[in-house]
Amino acid sequence: MPTIDAERLLSDLRRFAQFGAYKTGVHRPTYSREDIESRRWLVQQYETAGLQAHIDGVGNVFGTPRSDRRSLLIGSHAESQNYAGWLDGALGVIYGLEIARTFAETLGCAGLLISPVAWADEEGHYVSMLGSRSFVGDIDEAEIDRAVNVNEGLPLRDALRTAGLAGVPRSLVEPERHVGYLEAHIEQGDALEASGNRIGIVTSIVGIWQYSIIFHGIQNHAGTTRMAIRKDAGVAAATLVLAIAKRFPEVAGPCSVWTAGRINLEPGAPSIIPGKAEMVFQFRDSEMPVLERLDALLRELVEETALKTGCRTEIVRTETGKPCNMDPAFQNAIENAAARHAPGAHVRMPSGAGHDAQIVVPRLRSAMLFIPSIGGISHHWTENTDDTDLVLGCQVLADAAETILRDEEENLDSRG
Amino acid sequence: MPTIDAERLLSDLRRFAQFGAYKTGVHRPTYSREDIESRRWLVQQYETAGLQAHIDGVGNVFGTPRSDRRSLLIGSHAESQNYAGWLDGALGVIYGLEIARTFAETLGCAGLLISPVAWADEEGHYVSMLGSRSFVGDIDEAEIDRAVNVNEGLPLRDALRTAGLAGVPRSLVEPERHVGYLEAHIEQGDALEASGNRIGIVTSIVGIWQYSIIFHGIQNHAGTTRMAIRKDAGVAAATLVLAIAKRFPEVAGPCSVWTAGRINLEPGAPSIIPGKAEMVFQFRDSEMPVLERLDALLRELVEETALKTGCRTEIVRTETGKPCNMDPAFQNAIENAAARHAPGAHVRMPSGAGHDAQIVVPRLRSAMLFIPSIGGISHHWTENTDDTDLVLGCQVLADAAETILRDEEENLDSRG
Repeated sequence: MPTIDAERLLSDLRRFAQFGAYKTGVHRPTYSREDIESRRWLVQQYETAGLQAHIDGVGNVFGTPRSDRRSLLIGSHAESQNYAGWLDGALGVIYGLEIARTFAETLGCAGLLISPVAWADEEGHYVSMLGSRSFVGDIDEAEIDRAVNVNEGLPLRDALRTAGLAGVPRSLVEPERHVGYLEAHIEQGDALEASGNRIGIVTSIVGIWQYSIIFHGIQNHAGTTRMAIRKDAGVAAATLVLAIAKRFPEVAGPCSVWTAGRINLEPGAPSIIPGKAEMVFQFRDSEMPVLERLDALLRELVEETALKTGCRTEIVRTETGKPCNMDPAFQNAIENAAARHAPGAHVRMPSGAGHDAQIVVPRLRSAMLFIPSIGGISHHWTENTDDTDLVLGCQVLADAAETILRDEEENLDSRG
Repeated sequence: MPTIDAERLLSDLRRFAQFGAYKTGVHRPTYSREDIESRRWLVQQYETAGLQAHIDGVGNVFGTPRSDRRSLLIGSHAESQNYAGWLDGALGVIYGLEIARTFAETLGCAGLLISPVAWADEEGHYVSMLGSRSFVGDIDEAEIDRAVNVNEGLPLRDALRTAGLAGVPRSLVEPERHVGYLEAHIEQGDALEASGNRIGIVTSIVGIWQYSIIFHGIQNHAGTTRMAIRKDAGVAAATLVLAIAKRFPEVAGPCSVWTAGRINLEPGAPSIIPGKAEMVFQFRDSEMPVLERLDALLRELVEETALKTGCRTEIVRTETGKPCNMDPAFQNAIENAAARHAPGAHVRMPSGAGHDAQIVVPRLRSAMLFIPSIGGISHHWTENTDDTDLVLGCQVLADAAETILRDEEENLDSRG
């Protein structure tokens, strides 16, 4: 049985958090100097672990065993959200490294091959899930040509050139070379903590449906326009937000979530009645029928808001993510390992967040493991997890990887 | 009786709108190249009308009669809001010019002196009512040192230097030199149009009370945070906006208005629950007790919102404008003139907007005249008024000015 080196794991997690350290978290946007340095450091570590290492044309870092046998990909994304936590993404990346090293060092694991991977830009500083989408062949050069940094507007091509990646080929999945893909991640919610569980076995990844909703009111002087004749786009936006809060629970599933994360009022001046309001709204669920019910209700509420406030409304769905299921045998492998190391403290659960695994799963059997987030906090520099859980998660994932690779060997033997 | 030159008035209004022309409106921010050019043009016109003209250290343009006798100040502000209308401010400025010329040309008006004036930055690109506040001695050098452009952050001192005004003295009111101040303005609302009136005699200018209201929620991941534990600052802001819409009418006066013109959600990302919302909220009324009732109710609703949403709230009043009354004798003079030129089509009304007259009135007897805004629109490039109303307003103001100056002469005679 492969036994990970807990001290080495924790030390490397902390070392990785020095790339772009910010308070107790990190600020390591994709292709920033710190992000590229962190990827070069991974190359060194993969090579030290006896692997062939390379960074591909979008910044994905691969560690490839020097063997013709099939390997198990293990990883996550290396960059962070802006001024955010030290574990989001980094956790799964360092787990991949640690498990690869452990298998290489464990005599009993000879021939069981791990390919650690660090994807680029899952967080969407340029294109959400760029690295894994590139890997599965789901992005073309034209989309890369068009992409710009969402905050600064810098073209992706310029960022890649500065990172030394111009002209470097993008690595494409060769499904026959991999047994599958495992990804560990912090939960980013409080379900594990609140239920006293330490390991989550992800059953599915939710679909995200996102909308641009615009309210057109009448922009006018805030001092001279009588209340009776106003068409205030900001009031319309507020009306919709509260209608959603009231009515969504009627049709939502038990794990549905919804968020109006951005509302912009125009012109946004104290003495001018907002003539326009733009809202970005999204909801998530793991069941397609629930997503469809929420979509229908949202459109109904947008119309009601228009009638109620006299503001013209527009609604456009900008994202229609399908929920996807994780591989059942891989889930079993993780669950059995969790039962050994954390008996009675593991639970099957959907993932409310999007992850690279949802991009990879159509091409490679995939599964995910969650460990608790203290206070449910993530995407913030205070994000954290107990050291004991950091170590437990890696050991459980290592055990699951062994099971998956041994099952693969047996299948080969039985076929042979 | 002074008879204005309608053609010259309309022609100069249109000429003035060419400084920073934008669609059918103007974009002429304070101290922009176009604004300074428009002020230099006014200097020429004032001089052509036989006046001494100068631009003072904050950009106010004064036309001063070459006489020791007291004069009546007539004007408004010359700059515009960004990408806004051609009449807001400019109307009163060109009325002042036209009335000064008319009096100078009219034999019967000999010795009745008009001082046209164009204030700077009533619109607050740097400091709201800067020019008139400087004139009455209500601003010091330290405040000018600190002030920056609200959109671009450019220091006011730099803007003044670029405009050639560095080191130029600021002109201070000498109350013994002026009979009073008259200001004409478009109504910026639809009350005149809706009631079929063509002249408004302003009785008072409302007090504006403005607030910064902040909601502190808990910023978290929009996919993994269960609805039950969320503290969404954006939902809290929406809750307050609707509570205000519902409850304010209970204590408001018939002319009260209230507006949430700006709401910023932080961090404003689609997949992050807003952790903070900042709202700028204001209300206006011409009665102090109404303002106080609205203040008390607002604070009550903010507390209720905190309880209801679990978000901590802060409320700070940033502006506490006192309503002020216009001079009764000046109001009568305008009303009598309106009764002559537009019988049955004039009305006394409060001003819902702030104007330079509210700054001037504590030092000089002051009054204001309104003409209709088509559709009630202002602060937008479609702002407009019928030519016949443009001409009517100027003639009414000229007549009122004559009455005010003749009354002053009689008073002097009776005293002498």
